[in-house]
Amino acid sequence: MAKTVSNTSKVQAPQHKAAAAGTALTAGLRSRPIVILNVSPEVDGGRFAIKREVGDVLVVAADVFKDGHDKLCVMLMVRRSADKQWQDVPMTCTNPGLDRWQGQFALTENTGYVYTIEAWSDAFESWRDEVQKKLAANVDVTLELIEGRDLVVQAAGRADAAGKAYFKEILERYDAADHVRRWGLLLSEEVSGNVARWPDRGSASRYDLELEVFVDRVAARYAAWYEMFHRSQGTVPGKPASLKDCERRLPEIRELGFDVIYFVPVHPIGRSHRKGPDNTLNAGPNDPGSPYAIGSEEGGHTALHKDLGTIDDFRHFVAAAASHGMEVALDFAIQCSPDHPWIKSNPDWFRFRPDGTIKYAENPPKKYQDIVNVDFYTVDQEGLWKEILHSVLFWVDLGVKTFRVDNPHTKPVPFWEWLIREIRRDHPDVIFLAEAFTRPPMMRMLAKVGYSQSYTYFTWRNFKHEITEYLTELTQSPVAEYMRPNFFPTTPDILPEFLQNGGRPAFITRFVLAATLSSVYGMYNGYELCENAAVPGKEEYLHSEKYDYKVWDWDRPGNIKELIAKVNRIRRENPALHELTNLRFHTAHDDNILFYGKMTPDRSNMILIAVNLDPFDAHGADIEIPLHELGLADHDNFVVEDLLTGAKHLWSGSRHHVQLGPDTNQAMILRVVPWHHVDFETPCY
Amino acid sequence: MAKTVSNTSKVQAPQHKAAAAGTALTAGLRSRPIVILNVSPEVDGGRFAIKREVGDVLVVAADVFKDGHDKLCVMLMVRRSADKQWQDVPMTCTNPGLDRWQGQFALTENTGYVYTIEAWSDAFESWRDEVQKKLAANVDVTLELIEGRDLVVQAAGRADAAGKAYFKEILERYDAADHVRRWGLLLSEEVSGNVARWPDRGSASRYDLELEVFVDRVAARYAAWYEMFHRSQGTVPGKPASLKDCERRLPEIRELGFDVIYFVPVHPIGRSHRKGPDNTLNAGPNDPGSPYAIGSEEGGHTALHKDLGTIDDFRHFVAAAASHGMEVALDFAIQCSPDHPWIKSNPDWFRFRPDGTIKYAENPPKKYQDIVNVDFYTVDQEGLWKEILHSVLFWVDLGVKTFRVDNPHTKPVPFWEWLIREIRRDHPDVIFLAEAFTRPPMMRMLAKVGYSQSYTYFTWRNFKHEITEYLTELTQSPVAEYMRPNFFPTTPDILPEFLQNGGRPAFITRFVLAATLSSVYGMYNGYELCENAAVPGKEEYLHSEKYDYKVWDWDRPGNIKELIAKVNRIRRENPALHELTNLRFHTAHDDNILFYGKMTPDRSNMILIAVNLDPFDAHGADIEIPLHELGLADHDNFVVEDLLTGAKHLWSGSRHHVQLGPDTNQAMILRVVPWHHVDFETPCY
Repeated sequence: MAKTVSNTSKVQAPQHKAAAAGTALTAGLRSRPIVILNVSPEVDGGRFAIKREVGDVLVVAADVFKDGHDKLCVMLMVRRSADKQWQDVPMTCTNPGLDRWQGQFALTENTGYVYTIEAWSDAFESWRDEVQKKLAANVDVTLELIEGRDLVVQAAGRADAAGKAYFKEILERYDAADHVRRWGLLLSEEVSGNVARWPDRGSASRYDLELEVFVDRVAARYAAWYEMFHRSQGTVPGKPASLKDCERRLPEIRELGFDVIYFVPVHPIGRSHRKGPDNTLNAGPNDPGSPYAIGSEEGGHTALHKDLGTIDDFRHFVAAAASHGMEVALDFAIQCSPDHPWIKSNPDWFRFRPDGTIKYAENPPKKYQDIVNVDFYTVDQEGLWKEILHSVLFWVDLGVKTFRVDNPHTKPVPFWEWLIREIRRDHPDVIFLAEAFTRPPMMRMLAKVGYSQSYTYFTWRNFKHEITEYLTELTQSPVAEYMRPNFFPTTPDILPEFLQNGGRPAFITRFVLAATLSSVYGMYNGYELCENAAVPGKEEYLHSEKYDYKVWDWDRPGNIKELIAKVNRIRRENPALHELTNLRFHTAHDDNILFYGKMTPDRSNMILIAVNLDPFDAHGADIEIPLHELGLADHDNFVVEDLLTGAKHLWSGSRHHVQLGPDTNQAMILRVVPWHHVDFETPCY
Repeated sequence: MAKTVSNTSKVQAPQHKAAAAGTALTAGLRSRPIVILNVSPEVDGGRFAIKREVGDVLVVAADVFKDGHDKLCVMLMVRRSADKQWQDVPMTCTNPGLDRWQGQFALTENTGYVYTIEAWSDAFESWRDEVQKKLAANVDVTLELIEGRDLVVQAAGRADAAGKAYFKEILERYDAADHVRRWGLLLSEEVSGNVARWPDRGSASRYDLELEVFVDRVAARYAAWYEMFHRSQGTVPGKPASLKDCERRLPEIRELGFDVIYFVPVHPIGRSHRKGPDNTLNAGPNDPGSPYAIGSEEGGHTALHKDLGTIDDFRHFVAAAASHGMEVALDFAIQCSPDHPWIKSNPDWFRFRPDGTIKYAENPPKKYQDIVNVDFYTVDQEGLWKEILHSVLFWVDLGVKTFRVDNPHTKPVPFWEWLIREIRRDHPDVIFLAEAFTRPPMMRMLAKVGYSQSYTYFTWRNFKHEITEYLTELTQSPVAEYMRPNFFPTTPDILPEFLQNGGRPAFITRFVLAATLSSVYGMYNGYELCENAAVPGKEEYLHSEKYDYKVWDWDRPGNIKELIAKVNRIRRENPALHELTNLRFHTAHDDNILFYGKMTPDRSNMILIAVNLDPFDAHGADIEIPLHELGLADHDNFVVEDLLTGAKHLWSGSRHHVQLGPDTNQAMILRVVPWHHVDFETPCY
């Protein structure tokens, strides 16, 4: 009776109709007996690319196993996304007890790569392994010898002409040899190596996913940004600065050690509902308005505000910045003023209300009466999306390779995924920073679909436990595979309470943290002056330059420019600080003192940092030097140099005391160098 | 110039050719703006089904979010795998800060189900929410009123005839009403509820994976197995027992409280290279041989050993077991003796060596000279696999619904995935236990591809930290979604050192642990007698019944049958012990005492268990009652009954002292019942 049932079955591919996405892999498993699973790195089952930077080594690991005792060959396969040709990198078993294999690949180009894994049974090595055990145990292996010869014949069948000739000669030598010589021949490294050159890869199991890594240029990970409110860079009160004024500041900013000049929006500003000073509703005729109310009769997203100059002036500024070793980043904000040309040219990109108006933007309780939003769900989605793409490419073609995107979380995620891929296809060097201060799932999602960098909650993480927890997530959890933090202590919109209350020592603390916890960070102009006048009860700047002309004294007393220049120089000179995921927290026996470090994998550069988190009082703490991590034995001596003061100490042992702050000596950046012991034999004069 | 570039772009579906499996989801994202991610439960990106049992409630959670401030409708969709019709279950937002949504579904049938998630923007609820805020803030909402009416018109457009009539009437009432009444109408719960009945689901975003849950019968999770070496159930030394002898033991075994009688292989045993007593190589003419050397002239995997009786006797045994409320499980071992009929009928299923022999099985250092293996990679794969399927179905048709599979890790994973699906399609009630003691990735993989239960490392986990760590992994980690442990303290092959040395107290400890840590466990016959004579220096039984006839005195002194009966009764009477993933470890201030508990979700049954892990000495420990978990306030009183002794205590507070072992009182199984405080008003006489 069982026979009847049996006849209804098919060995091939039973339909697992349920799990659509699962079918591919299980079908693969059916025909391919080697299991390849738990591949790392992999984001959301391969749905999103991981991120790396040029010069990185991609380390890929996986569980690879098969029934029985076969020796496996496991190959990491890598190709550039645009290519078809795979490159093979042998993987090695790093944890036999857990069947864990690992391989690595150097990422040398600013482009996308694809990787996957293939594995097959190595019949000849399995045979060698078994035979050698049996020979050692004095078991009869006559039959094994014949089986070994067969395996060489099979390898010859797979080989090319030269290979076939080689194996023919080997087999002739084998046939002419006596028993002992035959063993010598078949077990030789030479024959083994040659058989391995012609694997039976037709039977290989391939991991069913092809995973992507997008390799950015290094600036995506390592850079110091200076956020410049262009019209406040002048010297005449009540008058806007031009790009030429901005240009005049470049040497000073380069002196401070920044790599990126980031401009708030540079476009014409609308007249309708223009905001007056201090975010008031009725602007006077001479009030400039918020640069985020983009577009006027003079143009929209592809126009330059006439006060700033001409497009040629813009080109000149980009070139001038480049001559100082800096690049220009633009604020990309898709919203429009009610006077934006798109409203006339493409009214179907906006949603009109019953009274013929367009709803202004709101982010309760904030109201943006001078801004209207495009409707990303318009029927002319293609027209709108392409126009936005065109606007970005306009500035890319003018030499802008970095965009800070305003409020991306209020636009559709699919739009960003599309836009960033479109840009990157021809311009893989373009970097996008997501200015999304919103709930974690959306912030992570924006990073997953392509944003190179993300604003973060760093702005509000002030205490030891919360900094430790948040930075551990950003640098050690799966999030680190796709999300790069860009730490801004302040923005034109956010002056945190900590800085309002803590004054200069707080500005020092937050700056050192931003510049050393993260490899990329940004500073909004005025921070170097410790500007902290706030609207009472709010996290907003008093008399914000968002709504007004402003003239700064860039050397006013109390500024921290010397410290900034010093820390940026320390960053540049110490490769450990160019990395993000090498951050490790260490023990300081006082909750006011944060103690952490970064080092290069080869330990040639080892940095330890202690920061006083309290802007009001000095604190001392015993710190625990992580000797083992630094490659030091318990009684080794090491030189510790405070890179901020130049002071040097010769230490040994793990426990030492530091005394920090407030204000002066608010932080220590220690470079650790092992003291090389000279023993009896080494000197040679 | 940017225009040219722009023209090369298409808004639709940019090709992300790299990540093949990713394409589906990202394509979905492109057209569907609501993000649905991080779905739980989900195994390996939906590649494998999770497991539940009939009567369970499936709780599904996901991150669901969209750009902007729309109110979302999120629906859990469930269907039986065999059906096409989805059933909708509304999900609720359980953590707005993390955009976490949750829904649940009762699993009532022993079959596969598929689940996924759909979400859409609820325009009317978004409108209501915004309008109510504005009304509260005294903002002008004239335009909003018109927009609200439009939304009702749109809902009417989606409604059926009755719905259209309803909305027509509402709109007529609206148009006839004054401003205030119009607001009353549009904001009414009634209109809101009716609009919600006709959602704009055409624009819904669907999660791209359809996930599977296989719902087993409850016995997959909750059962006590008795492993019976059939030929040792008799009374005449040197003679085999028959199924009739086995049948005679059923009342006693049911008295002990077992649910499953599991037989070692019941098939004819080969003659060639038959093993003699104590695993010797030359069996005498009267030696029975190992039942794992399957197949002789009398038949193979579909035949019954003639000593056991006829197929009719087997049917009778199955019925007899059923009449005692028990079921029969068979050992399914695919290997063959050299005399198996398949070798003659289908020589191509075996791999012959140059001398015409088939290699015998080895698991170094163990040698199985009496066993040869089929070649799962034979060209006639279809013939072999179907014949094995046929062999399983043969016994299924005789009423066997549970199979313990011997060494599945030495057979191809794809084979098991295929076989189990084939069996389950018509017999969803069949349970497979994987006897794989191998590396963790393969053990997990066998569970992923369909095995209902798995042997575990429990056999070798004796100390507090290792039991806690291992059981936390089995019950609280993602592994618990697909892998069910079946705890065997011993097997015919494994007599652990702990039991060899610890004697009766060790047998008590390991039994109580197996029966209360896991909801399904098994006992190999002889365990109840504390049989622990071992081959010196090995974890093997001395004079193993695998190679010999054996007669046991099932009531010999020192047995623990009374305890076994009691614990199995306690298991049956306490639903908390029918579950696996409700295991929680609690604090006992002594490493020799393990303290843990299980309770039902409604707290109607709360069990706490303390076990002395040391077989040699008595130990006392303060234990911490988890008052909060038990729903008790700090000063509540509660009654604690030791279900093993019947002793009761009235306790309050968290810290209490227990004194355990050795041997007598080696464990406590405490049922906790809150003491109901009678206050001044409650009594009513």
